[in-house]
Amino acid sequence: MKTSLTILTLLLMLASVSCRYEAVENESAKTNIKEILNKQAAAWNEGSIEKYMDGYQRSDSLRFASGGNVSYGWQTTLERYRKGYPDRSSMGKLIFSDIDITLISNDAALVFGRWELQRNNDRPQGLFTLLFRKTKSGWRIVHDHTSSAGK
Amino acid sequence: MKTSLTILTLLLMLASVSCRYEAVENESAKTNIKEILNKQAAAWNEGSIEKYMDGYQRSDSLRFASGGNVSYGWQTTLERYRKGYPDRSSMGKLIFSDIDITLISNDAALVFGRWELQRNNDRPQGLFTLLFRKTKSGWRIVHDHTSSAGK
Repeated sequence: MKTSLTILTLLLMLASVSCRYEAVENESAKTNIKEILNKQAAAWNEGSIEKYMDGYQRSDSLRFASGGNVSYGWQTTLERYRKGYPDRSSMGKLIFSDIDITLISNDAALVFGRWELQRNNDRPQGLFTLLFRKTKSGWRIVHDHTSSAGK
Repeated sequence: MKTSLTILTLLLMLASVSCRYEAVENESAKTNIKEILNKQAAAWNEGSIEKYMDGYQRSDSLRFASGGNVSYGWQTTLERYRKGYPDRSSMGKLIFSDIDITLISNDAALVFGRWELQRNNDRPQGLFTLLFRKTKSGWRIVHDHTSSAGK
């Protein structure tokens, strides 16, 4: 009887430590993901699309969807951005807001939020859904679906 | 030595059974999700937005994003659809294509694909990213991000 109680107590302690460990892990994942988004916006606002692209997984399977177009691969996405934003004034100032991070598993998170480009002549804005996966290099975007307002 | 080998053999058998079980589970999840999308398109094409909405989780946390707008809740999403598509001719014929299902965990899947409405005067089309979760009622959409081509 005494042995059963001891085993039960140990199991409960283990479960409690495991739960707390998971909560800490989840917080750390969310912090890491937020940091990547902050770094992306900072890179964009320095005019570096290449540094901005660090947030994406360097893989041919990276999926980038916008409006009615979908493209695959890190390099293709980089070129698409370079073509769409050839200079600093077209890049404007990028602002992410209303970021909502849902951890789906230990190595996957869905991130939803709003983007805005503050430019001299306009302020295009819209929404994005990202799937982040925890890769060997850390959390990276593997799927990006972006939509634009009023378009 | 003989005992260790027996244990190792048993463990390997267990791992193999578990892997096969997982593969079967994954296939069944993908089949269920495809079925829900087929039922949604069929309901739409019968003119029933309410039946189409069966694919979505009946929850206030359901998120529906389109262009630059985001709304929450099953009821709100239903009303949004009813307002946007007041009659059969505005609903047209809905076709889903290029469906790609990524299972993220036992109870979560990312679904990406293309939608098209074949109507008398136009053919609006675009892309969608869905997050499905396995709920008590089965697999349901909890997050829908839709974008339109040429807009």
